[in-house]
Amino acid sequence: MEDYSYETAVDVRLRDVDFMGHVNNAIYATYLEQAREDYFADVLDVSLVETDTVLVSLELEYARPIEADDEVTVALRVPELGTSSLPMAYEIRSNGERAATARTVQVLTDPETGESRPIPPEWRTRIERRE
Amino acid sequence: MEDYSYETAVDVRLRDVDFMGHVNNAIYATYLEQAREDYFADVLDVSLVETDTVLVSLELEYARPIEADDEVTVALRVPELGTSSLPMAYEIRSNGERAATARTVQVLTDPETGESRPIPPEWRTRIERRE
Amino acid sequence: MEDYSYETAVDVRLRDVDFMGHVNNAIYATYLEQAREDYFADVLDVSLVETDTVLVSLELEYARPIEADDEVTVALRVPELGTSSLPMAYEIRSNGERAATARTVQVLTDPETGESRPIPPEWRTRIERRE
Amino acid sequence: MEDYSYETAVDVRLRDVDFMGHVNNAIYATYLEQAREDYFADVLDVSLVETDTVLVSLELEYARPIEADDEVTVALRVPELGTSSLPMAYEIRSNGERAATARTVQVLTDPETGESRPIPPEWRTRIERRE
Repeated sequence: MEDYSYETAVDVRLRDVDFMGHVNNAIYATYLEQAREDYFADVLDVSLVETDTVLVSLELEYARPIEADDEVTVALRVPELGTSSLPMAYEIRSNGERAATARTVQVLTDPETGESRPIPPEWRTRIERRE
Repeated sequence: MEDYSYETAVDVRLRDVDFMGHVNNAIYATYLEQAREDYFADVLDVSLVETDTVLVSLELEYARPIEADDEVTVALRVPELGTSSLPMAYEIRSNGERAATARTVQVLTDPETGESRPIPPEWRTRIERRE
Repeated sequence: MEDYSYETAVDVRLRDVDFMGHVNNAIYATYLEQAREDYFADVLDVSLVETDTVLVSLELEYARPIEADDEVTVALRVPELGTSSLPMAYEIRSNGERAATARTVQVLTDPETGESRPIPPEWRTRIERRE
Repeated sequence: MEDYSYETAVDVRLRDVDFMGHVNNAIYATYLEQAREDYFADVLDVSLVETDTVLVSLELEYARPIEADDEVTVALRVPELGTSSLPMAYEIRSNGERAATARTVQVLTDPETGESRPIPPEWRTRIERRE
């Protein structure tokens, strides 16, 4: 099992379950977003809501369905840091078992120009210390 | 530009827009699901709701943000058919421009056993005729 | 049947359907929001996204479930206008039959202060002409 | 302040926030649904997912906006019990302050016929003991 340096709990909602009786595939992307928000708050000590970032890519491999009553966590780590890109690898766990793996690439942007901007050294230190 | 054999319109909702003022990244996965539903109805003449399938993987590359008032369509094609897997390649278009590309793999399942089952020959014919 | 002065179509999504196999109760509120957006664009010629309003209250009476494949429209009218409040009465229709009735009260606000502000005379004229 | 006999926490998601920067009005209905699910589990010792009920009405009065980082709870009580209808009164609290009040009426149904069925005496006892 891959090592993840961070893990956070996600509250499954009834509304997440779709016509097939399982958590809908798109909601997994929302769980990843929640995990990023928690990571930003806990590890970087910043609010994702107040940080300008753009999601560049998202990959999800679904392993097993998640039910409404399952206990879900998202484990994540930052495999390597780019200049302005922040890639993340995730494992969504349902009752302790792998329900999905995922990867995202997120880019820091300048609120004025919308152009990418370098990851602050302070973040770099915090991320690397965590890994 | 890649050729897509099918295209369908998606209605952007205010609710799709998130705290950053654009359509949220997870909603793109919902747009793909809508496109699959339309493809199943229009090309395969079956209801996705009444068909047992499992989404195995999802990949999204985000190219440009989608705004609440944009006209959105999803173009798709079936690059190649497996025995029981139905891969799809997509382009999400906003006001005629590429907003994202995507790929999914979906597997047909048996409602009783949950095991994969072969794609019906009738579907195969319809899909290949379309491509 | 009550008279409604405006009617708009809503696209039901698979994602709207919940674990009970029908459109989820909270999604009806989203359908009303879509109807308000369309009314603002068609009758008031303004974008709801660019207009500062606050929803003050919402009432929904559910009459019959909505299925994924139903054709849904929202009919609405403005029963009476306050100084800064814009009440609306709705009927959500599924395949032409009443699926729910609803009422909302929305208040126009000042983007700077957040305080309520009077409905512009131009809007008043457009709304009254429509009723 | 009205007395509520039950209170449960709700996890605000980034995805709940809309283009206006606050939790979207329709999401409040989802918070109520989560509270009902928790109440069913904690007080009635049954799973709402496995119980056949129909939501008959929903009323919401919005008092103040909810932000992404707010701590939200839903307090609820059952004001009076009908034969087969289960009314609930709610207060949605954000950082301890009233963000909204709400009422719903939910009816127990027979899974076979879809007709209403009486609230089991066991539930009646549990609900009344709680109030």
